[in-house]
Amino acid sequence: MGERDLIRTFTARLGRRDDRLLIGPGDDAAVVRPAGALAVTSTDTTVEGVHLPAGDPRATPGVVGHRSLATALSDLAAMGVPAGEAYVALTIPASWDDDDVLACVDAMESLAARTGTAIAGGDVSAGPALVATVTVVGWADDEEDLLRRDRARPGDLVGVTGELGGSACGLAVLRDDALLAGPAHAEARAALVERYLRPTPRLAAGVALRRAGVRVGIDLSDGVATDAGHVGRRSAVRLRIDLERLPLQAGVAAVASETGRDPAELAATGGEDFELLVTAPAALAGRLPGLGITWIGEVLAAAPGDAGGVTLLRGGEPVRLAGFEHRAG
Amino acid sequence: MGERDLIRTFTARLGRRDDRLLIGPGDDAAVVRPAGALAVTSTDTTVEGVHLPAGDPRATPGVVGHRSLATALSDLAAMGVPAGEAYVALTIPASWDDDDVLACVDAMESLAARTGTAIAGGDVSAGPALVATVTVVGWADDEEDLLRRDRARPGDLVGVTGELGGSACGLAVLRDDALLAGPAHAEARAALVERYLRPTPRLAAGVALRRAGVRVGIDLSDGVATDAGHVGRRSAVRLRIDLERLPLQAGVAAVASETGRDPAELAATGGEDFELLVTAPAALAGRLPGLGITWIGEVLAAAPGDAGGVTLLRGGEPVRLAGFEHRAG
Repeated sequence: MGERDLIRTFTARLGRRDDRLLIGPGDDAAVVRPAGALAVTSTDTTVEGVHLPAGDPRATPGVVGHRSLATALSDLAAMGVPAGEAYVALTIPASWDDDDVLACVDAMESLAARTGTAIAGGDVSAGPALVATVTVVGWADDEEDLLRRDRARPGDLVGVTGELGGSACGLAVLRDDALLAGPAHAEARAALVERYLRPTPRLAAGVALRRAGVRVGIDLSDGVATDAGHVGRRSAVRLRIDLERLPLQAGVAAVASETGRDPAELAATGGEDFELLVTAPAALAGRLPGLGITWIGEVLAAAPGDAGGVTLLRGGEPVRLAGFEHRAG
Repeated sequence: MGERDLIRTFTARLGRRDDRLLIGPGDDAAVVRPAGALAVTSTDTTVEGVHLPAGDPRATPGVVGHRSLATALSDLAAMGVPAGEAYVALTIPASWDDDDVLACVDAMESLAARTGTAIAGGDVSAGPALVATVTVVGWADDEEDLLRRDRARPGDLVGVTGELGGSACGLAVLRDDALLAGPAHAEARAALVERYLRPTPRLAAGVALRRAGVRVGIDLSDGVATDAGHVGRRSAVRLRIDLERLPLQAGVAAVASETGRDPAELAATGGEDFELLVTAPAALAGRLPGLGITWIGEVLAAAPGDAGGVTLLRGGEPVRLAGFEHRAG
């Protein structure tokens, strides 16, 4: 199939779930009626061989499609806004046949349908490797009514959604068949791999937290150890996080044990869990049950001369963690 | 420089010419106040080795930066809307050093400044080749007040901005030093190469045409022979274009002569000139002097059973042109 036929085939496969899409694929640009006073936009690239293992039969084209949209949508979750439109640019290697491309698009469209995202435009090119760049747009009404990085205040509690460490451990077991090899671990192992290959953007949690009054959030793409630091620096405060309080996905402790690592360290540095880290005043935090938040620390004023950041505690003592390079290549 | 340092360095180099940018690079997503009732969005990918020659010293990182933003902005020109924001995703090969990356970003920012585009966000990844995906957003007020592909009507005249064939001939002379080798051609040769390497998106022309009442337009990325067909099919009409009337850039006739091709054919199929093709009722067309339009044909009703398209005439007779593969790889 040529590029034009592929684009036509894509277009036929895309749901028209967005009545705001006035002109869709087929003109020079898509025309969308905004669903709010402000456009919230993020762009994210997935490169096979860098963000996903190249040549691993489990990193299917469907995984590439799902993952590239999911990681982009995670940035909207981190702002607390629902998904609006997505614009998808695929650079396709010669090793992919038409079925691969369609499987990629179908997986993307399936996640789009589940999250209410309208794939409103895109581009298809040939290239030396699979590169998927997804630009997502959500709509909001007030710049103060968002999960921002620069609004953390001393006295806030620090919380995370869901469970951590699963993605890094999923990649670890993908790379090493000997890890969690026993039948007792089969279920946890499969869940870890799934967590790595098909992350879920926490869109509903992000919107619910923002509506409940939370104003600070970031998604955990690099891990708590790094991402909490972004919030600390942007807000000029210090986030203090107890490693012992990190919620671990099932199987993370076992992977840590088999690889001689500290499980909390793995969870704090592994990255790509795409959970949300938030801060909220204690009174508000107490009113957020049901949203699945685990409270893992608190926000302190930065000392004089401190530009802000994160301090990780183990047994009440500050620790420095060696970086964990979350690379699939 | 790591990816984070690069992003910080980029951000420092970007102009803040857009007071609509409420939250710029540094949070999970950019937050923009719309400058119109409708978002007009397009995404475009430039792959080194596909859209530009890999390893040619003239296809510098600055060329990659300019060209990737220019081709994306051309889609906004083709809708008749001014540039708003751009979101830039760069996949950077190991062969590029930090200076290359910065030269790429500087060239992009330079074009952004000249066109009033605010680079509002982006992403940087490592990868096996340079892939630049640029998503551009413009703002409009009325979906009928745009240069669309689906509003051409029988009786309209067909016009193009500027001159054609320059980009294809620029690539041809880049590939073959023996073409236009004489000193008499030196100036035209340089202009052809520049035309190929650094195309200019016709944003001002697009906006002026729309404001003057034109409602049909497309940018010439594949060439008149292909792009006029898109307008014909989307509008269910037949565009009839006289090849003899195509405005040729200086040097195109000489390249055609030296390569044994028909100059008009080269201009019609070469592509990547990024001029605009428009249609307009004759009365309106007569009121558009000063906009540099050359009228090259007219719109006919499609015959029964004809889904619409383009008919190219040479000496009054329909011709079929062999496709010209405008590939740099």
